[in-house]
Amino acid sequence: MSPRDPIGVFDSGIGGLTVVRELVRQLPHERIIYFGDTARVPYGPKSPDTVRRYSNEIATWLVEQRVKVIVVACNTATAHALENLQRDFPLPVIGVVQPGARAAVCATRNHRIGVIGTLGTINSGAYDRAIHAISREADVVAQACPLFVPLVEEGWLDTEATRLIAREYLRPFTSDHVDTLVLGCTHYPLLKPMLAQVVGRDVRLIDSAEETAAETCRVLTERNLVAPPGSVGTHRFVASDAPDHFLRQGQRFLGAAIDEVEKVTLG
Amino acid sequence: MSPRDPIGVFDSGIGGLTVVRELVRQLPHERIIYFGDTARVPYGPKSPDTVRRYSNEIATWLVEQRVKVIVVACNTATAHALENLQRDFPLPVIGVVQPGARAAVCATRNHRIGVIGTLGTINSGAYDRAIHAISREADVVAQACPLFVPLVEEGWLDTEATRLIAREYLRPFTSDHVDTLVLGCTHYPLLKPMLAQVVGRDVRLIDSAEETAAETCRVLTERNLVAPPGSVGTHRFVASDAPDHFLRQGQRFLGAAIDEVEKVTLG
Repeated sequence: MSPRDPIGVFDSGIGGLTVVRELVRQLPHERIIYFGDTARVPYGPKSPDTVRRYSNEIATWLVEQRVKVIVVACNTATAHALENLQRDFPLPVIGVVQPGARAAVCATRNHRIGVIGTLGTINSGAYDRAIHAISREADVVAQACPLFVPLVEEGWLDTEATRLIAREYLRPFTSDHVDTLVLGCTHYPLLKPMLAQVVGRDVRLIDSAEETAAETCRVLTERNLVAPPGSVGTHRFVASDAPDHFLRQGQRFLGAAIDEVEKVTLG
Repeated sequence: MSPRDPIGVFDSGIGGLTVVRELVRQLPHERIIYFGDTARVPYGPKSPDTVRRYSNEIATWLVEQRVKVIVVACNTATAHALENLQRDFPLPVIGVVQPGARAAVCATRNHRIGVIGTLGTINSGAYDRAIHAISREADVVAQACPLFVPLVEEGWLDTEATRLIAREYLRPFTSDHVDTLVLGCTHYPLLKPMLAQVVGRDVRLIDSAEETAAETCRVLTERNLVAPPGSVGTHRFVASDAPDHFLRQGQRFLGAAIDEVEKVTLG
């Protein structure tokens, strides 16, 4: 592995592009190869075994592209497959759960941490475990918000219906007095301004995408794998199905234009 | 094929169970084998080729189970794969689009027909084509409602947010004065009472599940394949992944208890 090798990022679909956006912001000299498994999205309702099999196939493909590190920009894949990937592949593998959990434990003052995510992520208990592994006394209140992903994909980031739904979902956090809320889904950063208003200024929002990019920066630095300044960060975007749809939807998540999406079939 | 053989039904997931519910109501002596492709749901965002390949695999499996007819209880699979299945398999194959289109053309008085469905179904233009193949003078107003499926799966069938979203989606139909609205998605029958209130009593709702079951009845009768009275309709439910989730969610769509869900992996 060399500093000039790209960073491999994968997700079940396009949500992981919010992590790419943060990587580009924090590590502007890196090249990124993003794989969105749009043929098999979503991973949430799939069994852990299936998610592990898919993640393994994608990681194998990324390693063939000679990436220097793999970022699992998908909460479900992190929950079910991260340990296996870290064991089975000879390069650093970073998930989205641990960095968010760590930031939340640092940020909370009253040890009451809220977590929101998809049904799959919340049911996996991954954030619970990650937070309690760092802080035993933390109280975790978790809430699945299954409608947030489709609302984001529909572009309804701040409509009255979205606010009503958010108020309903976030009710447990106001009554339980959490002071820190982890956005445990890569789609949620797009809802951040609206969510901040709904929970109020006393609740600190933790953006997993931001924290994961910071963790990647730390890991690359430790291993002397940061791309040299002056490198040009050109990226590759790959989808396992419907690349046109990926291109159109993806720009909103990435916050920048995507010129081309390649199609690669796995499995 | 014999009258005692079962009816094969498939869908990308659990939505097609609303078609099974209607089949059970209209044809109580039939045995049904239902295949829900939960490992690869949803089909909507996938490319037509991929949907055709999946549909072919499932139809092959159903034929191995010795079904006498196949009902494609999935709008996306009907849009992309019905013709191929009808050409490639030696048994009747019935889709969900044609029966709803036919019923709408019969029901309308002013030739203005609305169609709602997922993004995949609406973008495929399948209802447009099916309606115009029957009636040239029909005016079709189509509207994708991507949030309805997640709202139904969340069980939010009649909340304030659901009504707000429905009013927003259905606005084109009130301004365009359609008098008939096709529910072009197998999830939507669960929203029917709320949708009926939103569009008002002057708009006739066409339930594709109901019409598809009626069409199945007609095809079986024509070919002398109706199960003899006195037969006991015991059914098999099969999912390609996460059968427990299927069982829990499925009952709401079927309107009856499911005892067991088998897991079968295809592809």
